[in-house]
Amino acid sequence: MAAWHAIIPAGGAGTRLWPLSRQDHPKFLLDLLGDGKSLLQATVERVSAFTDSVTVVTGPKHYEAVKKQLPDLGSKDLPGQIIVEPSPRDSMAAISVATYVLAAQHGSDILVSSFAADHQITNLDGFQVACRQSAAAAETGLLATIGITPTEPSTAFGYIAPSDVEVVPGAYLVERFVEKPDQETAAQFVAEGYLWNAGMFTAKASKFMTWTEEFLPQMHGALSDIAREYPGSETIPRSVWEGLQKIAIDYALAEPLAALNQVAVVPAANLGWSDVGDFAALTELRPGSKVIELGGEDNVALSNNKKIIGFIDVDNVLVIEGEEAILVLPKSSSERVKDFVGLLGNQGYSDLL
Amino acid sequence: MAAWHAIIPAGGAGTRLWPLSRQDHPKFLLDLLGDGKSLLQATVERVSAFTDSVTVVTGPKHYEAVKKQLPDLGSKDLPGQIIVEPSPRDSMAAISVATYVLAAQHGSDILVSSFAADHQITNLDGFQVACRQSAAAAETGLLATIGITPTEPSTAFGYIAPSDVEVVPGAYLVERFVEKPDQETAAQFVAEGYLWNAGMFTAKASKFMTWTEEFLPQMHGALSDIAREYPGSETIPRSVWEGLQKIAIDYALAEPLAALNQVAVVPAANLGWSDVGDFAALTELRPGSKVIELGGEDNVALSNNKKIIGFIDVDNVLVIEGEEAILVLPKSSSERVKDFVGLLGNQGYSDLL
Repeated sequence: MAAWHAIIPAGGAGTRLWPLSRQDHPKFLLDLLGDGKSLLQATVERVSAFTDSVTVVTGPKHYEAVKKQLPDLGSKDLPGQIIVEPSPRDSMAAISVATYVLAAQHGSDILVSSFAADHQITNLDGFQVACRQSAAAAETGLLATIGITPTEPSTAFGYIAPSDVEVVPGAYLVERFVEKPDQETAAQFVAEGYLWNAGMFTAKASKFMTWTEEFLPQMHGALSDIAREYPGSETIPRSVWEGLQKIAIDYALAEPLAALNQVAVVPAANLGWSDVGDFAALTELRPGSKVIELGGEDNVALSNNKKIIGFIDVDNVLVIEGEEAILVLPKSSSERVKDFVGLLGNQGYSDLL
Repeated sequence: MAAWHAIIPAGGAGTRLWPLSRQDHPKFLLDLLGDGKSLLQATVERVSAFTDSVTVVTGPKHYEAVKKQLPDLGSKDLPGQIIVEPSPRDSMAAISVATYVLAAQHGSDILVSSFAADHQITNLDGFQVACRQSAAAAETGLLATIGITPTEPSTAFGYIAPSDVEVVPGAYLVERFVEKPDQETAAQFVAEGYLWNAGMFTAKASKFMTWTEEFLPQMHGALSDIAREYPGSETIPRSVWEGLQKIAIDYALAEPLAALNQVAVVPAANLGWSDVGDFAALTELRPGSKVIELGGEDNVALSNNKKIIGFIDVDNVLVIEGEEAILVLPKSSSERVKDFVGLLGNQGYSDLL
């Protein structure tokens, strides 16, 4: 198999986990699961086990923190690098710049895989098997992805419709990608065997660049220039970078390639995968703070410090204590935290974001 | 008029205001109203304006804190003293020990008045007028009290039934004292013109001692001994003190004397009186912490620090942030905080009480 390089775009504040996650302390840098590692550290550990290097793409604000959390990155124990993107330009730019730089460094025959920096996976063996199957599919010239077998009709994820056509063992041609559905549609998708799109993509670097040239010629030109002259982190010219199209890789490559039968998906069940997307998810994954209840039940608290949280006569309430704010909500409103953070910004509390 | 001495029993943790009030930081020592004074400091300031001295009766655990909050107490600017009761023996013992000591110091012709250490009164002029009317009634040989005109059919207070017999201007003979009623009975009491018992009693020291001798002869003997030998604070023999009957002055004196037509009440409206008894009361009296709401309303937060409290999709919820605990409850459950504190104790969290 060709050399295989991992790319981890590390951006996004994780506003649905405010006030635990903040703009200055984004989700991927936090030990949200209470296991002594940040989500980014766990991701790097997970993917470095079977790839040849790890490239983290992050913003200038988080560069120092990422470096501090990954002190070995770049050493022979953990080959890789941090690429600093001058500003967030969505996932296509972040994954592409790493791909172009890696191809310039290692040649375009390599395989590249992108992984979210802030997801959890507990079944490491199962994950590795799925990644290897997707790499095998990518070696045939396809864009390969891993699709999570749904455990519920979630409306929080995009879905992938697989076909019956197995291209390599465990990998099936994709019929289409679909955006986050409503509840009814989600139930229908699950019944039809659709998979969750977990944002993991693998391709040969040469194919990736060919597709980029075809679908986003302007980005191809700019990234080719950047990669040719790339001597290390923090040196991407802002003017060039900010001319790049702001688009998710799903729209930029995955959807158009699926329409051309050039995407494969590896259905993966029982990976112990979670996007740790909101408090409802998080409270399933980690023990809450100490709670004492009088006349109520199923209340949960997450606190950064050791405070006891008492509840009287309320049920299913979540209390989140951050450094400068406390948030109280019914568990069922977990998806509304993002809206709340928007409200905060509108009301002039941008220092709390 | 005879010399007039104020007595302020300062005990009780204020468990209904946990975790703002704690055993080590009881309600009377806290600046709960956010006006820069503790409830005790405000009480001393209020009653020293029209009395000749102020005697605070408190426990050994709070002696230093009381002294620190009242540095002038005992000086010519603020005549008075702190009496340390070795352990809590309810209000009759606390008020009596001060009365006996004051009578020994100043002679038994003095008037004594007791005031709660942890109530709020905003109408100082009205309060003083009512106190002077009750003092005039006491000078006739009665036990005098001030009854608060109810603003609602509260179940949190005992009630006083006044008669039509005016003994001195503004003061009426009391028919009976009644304990905290249920909701229906409270409404009936309010309709019948009953008053709230706010625990303020005035009497001639000589009469007070006569009644004590009559109703609680054992206490009279012990307190006479203590007062005769009393050289200052912290010297009450624990063995004598702990033999005293543990009883509220309402049961010990007020009820039996009312049955003998020897109690007068001064009905007082618009004193701006509050017992600051629970969070429902407290949130009416002081501005809450900064609250931001999404999809909910009428939520209130009280925080010791400057945290912002956010609410999503809940109404009428109270959040109280103390130093080591956070409490979440519907406003309507404010009276249950006391039960919650009991639960804490039972579950082994006595360090949090």
